[in-house]
Amino acid sequence: MIKREKVKDLLVTTTFGKEVIVMGWVKTFRNNQFIALNDGSCMANLQVVVDFEQTPDEILKKITTGAALKITGKLVESLGKGQTVEVKASSVEILGESDAEKFPLQPKKHSLEFLREIAHLRFRTNTFNAVFKIRHHLAFAVHQFFHERGFVYLHTPIITASDAEGAGEMFRVTTLDFDKTPRTETGEVNFKEDFFGRSANLTVSGQLEGELGAMALGEIYTFGPTFRAENSNTTRHLAEFWMIEPEVAFADIEDNMNLAEDLLKYVIKHALENCKDELEFLKNRLLEEEKNKPQAERSELNLLEKLHFCLDNNFERLTYTEAIEILKRSKPNQKKQFNYIIDEWGADLQSEHERYLVEKHFKKPVILTNYPADIKSFYMRQNDEEVNGQKTVAAMDILFPGIGEIVGGSQREERLDKLTQRMQDMGIPQDELYWYLDTRRFGSAPHAGFGLGFERLVLFVTGMTNIRDVIPFPRFPKNAEF
Amino acid sequence: MIKREKVKDLLVTTTFGKEVIVMGWVKTFRNNQFIALNDGSCMANLQVVVDFEQTPDEILKKITTGAALKITGKLVESLGKGQTVEVKASSVEILGESDAEKFPLQPKKHSLEFLREIAHLRFRTNTFNAVFKIRHHLAFAVHQFFHERGFVYLHTPIITASDAEGAGEMFRVTTLDFDKTPRTETGEVNFKEDFFGRSANLTVSGQLEGELGAMALGEIYTFGPTFRAENSNTTRHLAEFWMIEPEVAFADIEDNMNLAEDLLKYVIKHALENCKDELEFLKNRLLEEEKNKPQAERSELNLLEKLHFCLDNNFERLTYTEAIEILKRSKPNQKKQFNYIIDEWGADLQSEHERYLVEKHFKKPVILTNYPADIKSFYMRQNDEEVNGQKTVAAMDILFPGIGEIVGGSQREERLDKLTQRMQDMGIPQDELYWYLDTRRFGSAPHAGFGLGFERLVLFVTGMTNIRDVIPFPRFPKNAEF
Repeated sequence: MIKREKVKDLLVTTTFGKEVIVMGWVKTFRNNQFIALNDGSCMANLQVVVDFEQTPDEILKKITTGAALKITGKLVESLGKGQTVEVKASSVEILGESDAEKFPLQPKKHSLEFLREIAHLRFRTNTFNAVFKIRHHLAFAVHQFFHERGFVYLHTPIITASDAEGAGEMFRVTTLDFDKTPRTETGEVNFKEDFFGRSANLTVSGQLEGELGAMALGEIYTFGPTFRAENSNTTRHLAEFWMIEPEVAFADIEDNMNLAEDLLKYVIKHALENCKDELEFLKNRLLEEEKNKPQAERSELNLLEKLHFCLDNNFERLTYTEAIEILKRSKPNQKKQFNYIIDEWGADLQSEHERYLVEKHFKKPVILTNYPADIKSFYMRQNDEEVNGQKTVAAMDILFPGIGEIVGGSQREERLDKLTQRMQDMGIPQDELYWYLDTRRFGSAPHAGFGLGFERLVLFVTGMTNIRDVIPFPRFPKNAEF
Repeated sequence: MIKREKVKDLLVTTTFGKEVIVMGWVKTFRNNQFIALNDGSCMANLQVVVDFEQTPDEILKKITTGAALKITGKLVESLGKGQTVEVKASSVEILGESDAEKFPLQPKKHSLEFLREIAHLRFRTNTFNAVFKIRHHLAFAVHQFFHERGFVYLHTPIITASDAEGAGEMFRVTTLDFDKTPRTETGEVNFKEDFFGRSANLTVSGQLEGELGAMALGEIYTFGPTFRAENSNTTRHLAEFWMIEPEVAFADIEDNMNLAEDLLKYVIKHALENCKDELEFLKNRLLEEEKNKPQAERSELNLLEKLHFCLDNNFERLTYTEAIEILKRSKPNQKKQFNYIIDEWGADLQSEHERYLVEKHFKKPVILTNYPADIKSFYMRQNDEEVNGQKTVAAMDILFPGIGEIVGGSQREERLDKLTQRMQDMGIPQDELYWYLDTRRFGSAPHAGFGLGFERLVLFVTGMTNIRDVIPFPRFPKNAEF
């Protein structure tokens, strides 16, 4: 028996005349003769030529878009345009029919909104084949990058009883019954009766646990799902998303910036080298889409140019204080075009400001450092020098064109007294985080880390514009379909 | 400024005389002179020699177990036993002290139970350094295996509204308040008001969504957290664990068995090649532990021999029916030593039976196939032949010595009529799973897949005996600490 071969492999085979078996789904069927067959192994289709005089009618009429076929035939040189090989079918077996009247994916252009409604079938389109192949390659490159550098992949917990970090609204995880909720004597919900014996949530970040790993194993990274129960219906937020969080002992904020820049460049390079067809397709898709826009709104660089531009330039590094000066003097600030006018040092930067810096002012990725302590988390290291008599922390955010913040990180506060003082100031309970503080009690050391939102990275590399289109089954308010 | 070097690299350096900076934690400090320094990069320590006459007393007394140090000094050839290099310190800086009275990890043997209580610090022990390094390497090898074969890594959802699969008890995910629970007119909890507009849970498996991916992309795998809200306090169960679930279009149960056997051998081989020191350490740890056991209870093979044995032998493949015959005739069954006596075909196999087959009868990994339909899931493909007039399904479970079931999989039922009939028989709602059935409506095709419990794999390769010791922060009933 001969083995089934993948379309991807056959398309580059030149041993013409050999007998092959290939299976896949019909994209189109022209003139009762030419099947474009796709098996998911690549975006390209294999042309299968059917001898319609020798093929029974009941088979021919079942060769419809979406049907699954098993083709036995001979691999021959193709005289058609756009392909070098085709298969001359000696037998066509219908594995699974597809009723042309009912199959939602017709051979025409569908809107991304429509495809989102049928996320279980959108994998069969060229666009989503490309997006999820690139997503795969980016994920693999992330693992490879850290593996090569000796980092340990650490699975930090998804369910956590710690709600002290304050990174956002959380989902409760429970086995308690709303109808028979156990109560304490004073009438409160008795979480001692819950599965974990206490109130538990879905994690918003693996960082704190990641630090525990780094303070022993040296260099770790997480790559797992994180959650926000925020009611935001935007093109940039999900309730469930994947995050990459490295944490490095004996590293400072400089090491941290270098690591993040190296990582981003490594994975983008990997995608450029391994996803040529997919990126080419998405580039053209974007160009096509922009044709409907006024000239002024079109991108200056196409997708491939944008990716190369990121690789070929050093990210611009500047302090928050320098950024505020630039923003204050900027046209949109002076002309009051920003929704939030930058008046003074201490303001939290909005997406519009981040994008101005990246897209208009520097025209390349930017790393902002040394933010005001007041607008950042408790665990960030306090800088020795103050700015205008105000405290700053050794934070670093990386801003990308079209995306805004793609990485947020910092050197961590390793000094027990400074850390506990700040927790006290911010009302963060120290008892609950005794294990976090233990790393500062027993052999504390400088260390740093960051979080990279994986979907934002996939957005950037694929050029897609809605985050719901770069994760297989997006979760957002009122949606947990599939 | 010279750069900090890792202990792992220094230990294989032979450019003696060069100036180095190294940072790490003190394991031991002997004779006010010899520091065993570990930075997590490997299990081995670097010997640092302190000139105690030139070093201030207040520094010397802070060189305690667990303290973090920055050492500047010269790399020299070591005359001591068990090492080829050491560092002659010219300066010792205390990065973080560690109060010897309070530091829980004293330089002596601690029980695994005790270390589980301080999971945030146990990474600093040799045992857990080894376990989590091996865990990393196994995870990386899994990704590499599938990447090399052209599989797409698919992130299936963690939060799901589908509760139809019946793989186990689930955790509810909610933002509803127990104190102000919204109710419908008839008094039921109104989940329309919940975050996702419906009742939602943590996933028990990504398989069903994985099938959607495979039926378009051809070959996918998941590697993510899955959950069971089962009140089991055993050494083999966790409430949160990681699972690997490949799904392959156009594959049958034979392909599926081959894929699973290839995967297991690939990752075990990777660990043997890349974790020599760690496996050697764990092998000796086990031998040491077994010294306290009676001869009869000791393992016949040591850890390394056991791993090699798995690589060097084909897994024994037999049907459930054949296994039942063997078990019926077995000594422990005839002598009624099993807790569950095997009387007849149709019995669900217990762990004791699986282990008898693997450890006593075949003495190698076993793949059991073609189980009775009645004890397996709705989505498994129904075999054409019946056994004793009873239906069987194309299921396959892989059983490993000491572990029992490590892989569970099947060819999937691709025939819409057979699938819906079975769902009806088993009371599984078809409306809710319309998207799953759509893959059978539009271009259905034979396909197969399996689930591999990652922690069980890590248990097997590390030789650890409690699953809580192979995941960084285990979740189980009444425990969500850290």
